[in-house]
Amino acid sequence: MTTPTSDTTLSHLPPERTAALRYVLRLADNALILGQRNAEWCGHGPVLEEDIALANISLDLIGQARLLYAHAGELEGALTGRQRHEDNYAYWRGEREFCNWTLAELPHSGPLAGTASCDRDYAVTITRNFLYSALMVELWNVLQASTDAELAAIAAKSVKEARYHLHHAAGWMVRLGDGTEASHLRMQRALDHLMPYMNECFAGDDVEQLAAVQGVAVPTADLRDAWEATVDETLAEATLERPVQNAFLSTGKHGLHSEHMSYLLAEMQSLARAHPGAQW
Amino acid sequence: MTTPTSDTTLSHLPPERTAALRYVLRLADNALILGQRNAEWCGHGPVLEEDIALANISLDLIGQARLLYAHAGELEGALTGRQRHEDNYAYWRGEREFCNWTLAELPHSGPLAGTASCDRDYAVTITRNFLYSALMVELWNVLQASTDAELAAIAAKSVKEARYHLHHAAGWMVRLGDGTEASHLRMQRALDHLMPYMNECFAGDDVEQLAAVQGVAVPTADLRDAWEATVDETLAEATLERPVQNAFLSTGKHGLHSEHMSYLLAEMQSLARAHPGAQW
Repeated sequence: MTTPTSDTTLSHLPPERTAALRYVLRLADNALILGQRNAEWCGHGPVLEEDIALANISLDLIGQARLLYAHAGELEGALTGRQRHEDNYAYWRGEREFCNWTLAELPHSGPLAGTASCDRDYAVTITRNFLYSALMVELWNVLQASTDAELAAIAAKSVKEARYHLHHAAGWMVRLGDGTEASHLRMQRALDHLMPYMNECFAGDDVEQLAAVQGVAVPTADLRDAWEATVDETLAEATLERPVQNAFLSTGKHGLHSEHMSYLLAEMQSLARAHPGAQW
Repeated sequence: MTTPTSDTTLSHLPPERTAALRYVLRLADNALILGQRNAEWCGHGPVLEEDIALANISLDLIGQARLLYAHAGELEGALTGRQRHEDNYAYWRGEREFCNWTLAELPHSGPLAGTASCDRDYAVTITRNFLYSALMVELWNVLQASTDAELAAIAAKSVKEARYHLHHAAGWMVRLGDGTEASHLRMQRALDHLMPYMNECFAGDDVEQLAAVQGVAVPTADLRDAWEATVDETLAEATLERPVQNAFLSTGKHGLHSEHMSYLLAEMQSLARAHPGAQW
């Protein structure tokens, strides 16, 4: 059978016509890739309660991704006449076609990987979920007023989930940050490691700007103050220091990913690609 | 384009006609899968010298696999009229079609994985290479007299490489086993973890027996005494204890693999499967 390949006709359309689709795909890819990452804890959580919590958070994120991909399929169908299925987005796109923030794809190993060969550092997991959820609570909240009614409905559902994810992560930020000397050090290291990747989330570009002009999107830069207030409040309670902002800018949302992305996709996509078109 | 799929016609041929092919494929799969595993150290070795040593050992093993797959392709072509390419064996077979010993596919994490989240334990890497190479030195040595002239030639080349691999691993067995208390403990744990998987290597079955009757193969059980002598000599110097043999029997050579195999294959095969038929 034929292997589904990516639709490259989008690049021949004017940017203002494809901005909403591209914007929705970014949201979808963020949710799918972070959901896939967090699911790596399934069966390996530090305690049973956390194992289940992480699995539930993953299911929420993958559920958001499914709704967003379904909507993207409609938008793409309206543009090209060919509607793509959610599985096509998830399993049959190549690395360069994914447009999630680099933050979402980073492994759980974090800054200790080189020294201790540690594969999964819960400090990294929690800190990423905290930084991401704190922003997504704000973003989903304002996207409830999107002129894209379908996106607004997805935002209304997702903001509730993001609030729970933030609550979960913030609780552990405090417990571990304001815990033992060792746990404090690991949390601070995770924060220092991950914070620079947030720059990408707040950096505007044509896609976001065009989608914002159409009322579909909101520039994340507008949400930065609210995000910083949330972050600073929790960090203060956790006795952690927010690293000074630097100029690092990752490029995942433009399809240029870290070296970790291809391994994640290989694992996530291999089953679907081994049995193309399989139904069950 | 069409996706290459496995050739299932072999199962319709009498076992004595396919035994040599199946035997060669086992040798090839062992070499490929262990080569792939050891290559995971590339860029992550504990010291530069070891990083390069492991990469060289991987290249030797993958080189052996290529010769063996090329030969398997000829044998299969003679049986079915359709000769398969080495890449077809490596990239387009599913998990159940690989017939390597389970030993070869185990991750480097080993017995410490659950407690310390350690991803790569050099003790496991070295101990596996030691146990495997100690057997392959014996096996390649006798296979130089195989009635299959091509296999005999591959054995003559491979036995020299296996001797170097054994020399490398045995040196570290002694240095780490007879090293610090911590390194001794990790080596003993790795040995206790891996030794039960050797049972599969020495367990005879129809494929090996039929190939041995034809003079193609030699039963590994016949090599056990020599292997044990090599192992015991090094373990004595390393102040390590050989675990008591138990009844555990892994089943990789029959295509029934551990939970680690599908992840290894996903990573190894994803690039080829993303670009079927690509040339460069």
